[in-house]
Amino acid sequence: MRVRNKPWAKELIEQNPQYVVENPESHKGKWQERFEKVQPLHIEVGSGKGRFIVGMAKQNPDINYIAIELEESVLVSILEKQLEEKLPNLQILHVNGSALTEYFEAGEVDLLYLNFSDPWPKTRHAKRRLTYKTFLATYETILVDNGEVHFKTDNRGLFEYSLVSFSEYGMRLKQVWLDLHASDFEGNVMTEYEEKFSSKGQPIYRVEAQFVK
Amino acid sequence: MRVRNKPWAKELIEQNPQYVVENPESHKGKWQERFEKVQPLHIEVGSGKGRFIVGMAKQNPDINYIAIELEESVLVSILEKQLEEKLPNLQILHVNGSALTEYFEAGEVDLLYLNFSDPWPKTRHAKRRLTYKTFLATYETILVDNGEVHFKTDNRGLFEYSLVSFSEYGMRLKQVWLDLHASDFEGNVMTEYEEKFSSKGQPIYRVEAQFVK
Repeated sequence: MRVRNKPWAKELIEQNPQYVVENPESHKGKWQERFEKVQPLHIEVGSGKGRFIVGMAKQNPDINYIAIELEESVLVSILEKQLEEKLPNLQILHVNGSALTEYFEAGEVDLLYLNFSDPWPKTRHAKRRLTYKTFLATYETILVDNGEVHFKTDNRGLFEYSLVSFSEYGMRLKQVWLDLHASDFEGNVMTEYEEKFSSKGQPIYRVEAQFVK
Repeated sequence: MRVRNKPWAKELIEQNPQYVVENPESHKGKWQERFEKVQPLHIEVGSGKGRFIVGMAKQNPDINYIAIELEESVLVSILEKQLEEKLPNLQILHVNGSALTEYFEAGEVDLLYLNFSDPWPKTRHAKRRLTYKTFLATYETILVDNGEVHFKTDNRGLFEYSLVSFSEYGMRLKQVWLDLHASDFEGNVMTEYEEKFSSKGQPIYRVEAQFVK
């Protein structure tokens, strides 16, 4: 993603602590306090500009969502959307996805989304892929027992890698889509990337993978 | 596959018991006796006209192959190829793939191939798919410990189903290809179908799945 320099981003973020969480460690184990209602908690790791997570939060008011994004100049776009929508079931977390256990208690999260994650195509960068086993171990810790990861991407290499990585980790593939937009999947919320790539005729891959106790 | 009526097929098969095995039950546990050399045994369930298995047998003289096909009018094409090639490491078995445990001893087979199997697209026919769990149980029995199934198809629905079926059964996906012909996979031997469908630009899917002890 091309990142524009947005000198005002930091300021806007600091002005809106009701949406962009300050001191995220302090909420570990009590994220539900940040929402109007206690209801299932779904998080997205690497939310980019937030179209997916904002769309999901609008579509599913009975689920609480946390958008996680490290890049300030991108995260600010999630905040801008939320300042328009003022969704009571959406919070934004400005942290690195590799340190999730610092911010979430074991079993605190009900479902985890990964969308169009960086493919890191070089083999020597495999450890940086968000479906690498060390990330999976982190997800397993913060998710409920038998928790699920829902992942979609247009990147064939990353998807091939991820199916194997999930499987090698011992996760079960509950469902796989090799051309999501040609399927009868309902309620799909597209990311910015997804709209761009699928309009070029590229298939979108999706998988629901489950940790097995 | 369109099946032509071939009244001479039965006769040609009967005339060549050195290639098309008679009384297959009698070879259970001693298939190696049918070959010149004792070496790893790979089988293909549903060999069709045999282009894949004959090509593999030519390419890999240090592996013994058994082509399994129920349809006489198709199987005869495998025999015709073998009558030309006279490969010492290829045998042909005229039986139903669902009854493999009648013909193979537990652990007798080193690797099992499925290629372009009938997709049986209707949900009510899922039990007929060669990657349905009852078939997997049969394969697990006749394969060595940690044996593998190598499967390729152009059918997206069957491949999606099969990845989930393997995973739900507890198999590990060792490697997945979502566009085999665009990958760096070496030594691919195409089936008749594969050539036909890939020339139309359709991706060929492939997976290597392993039973886990």
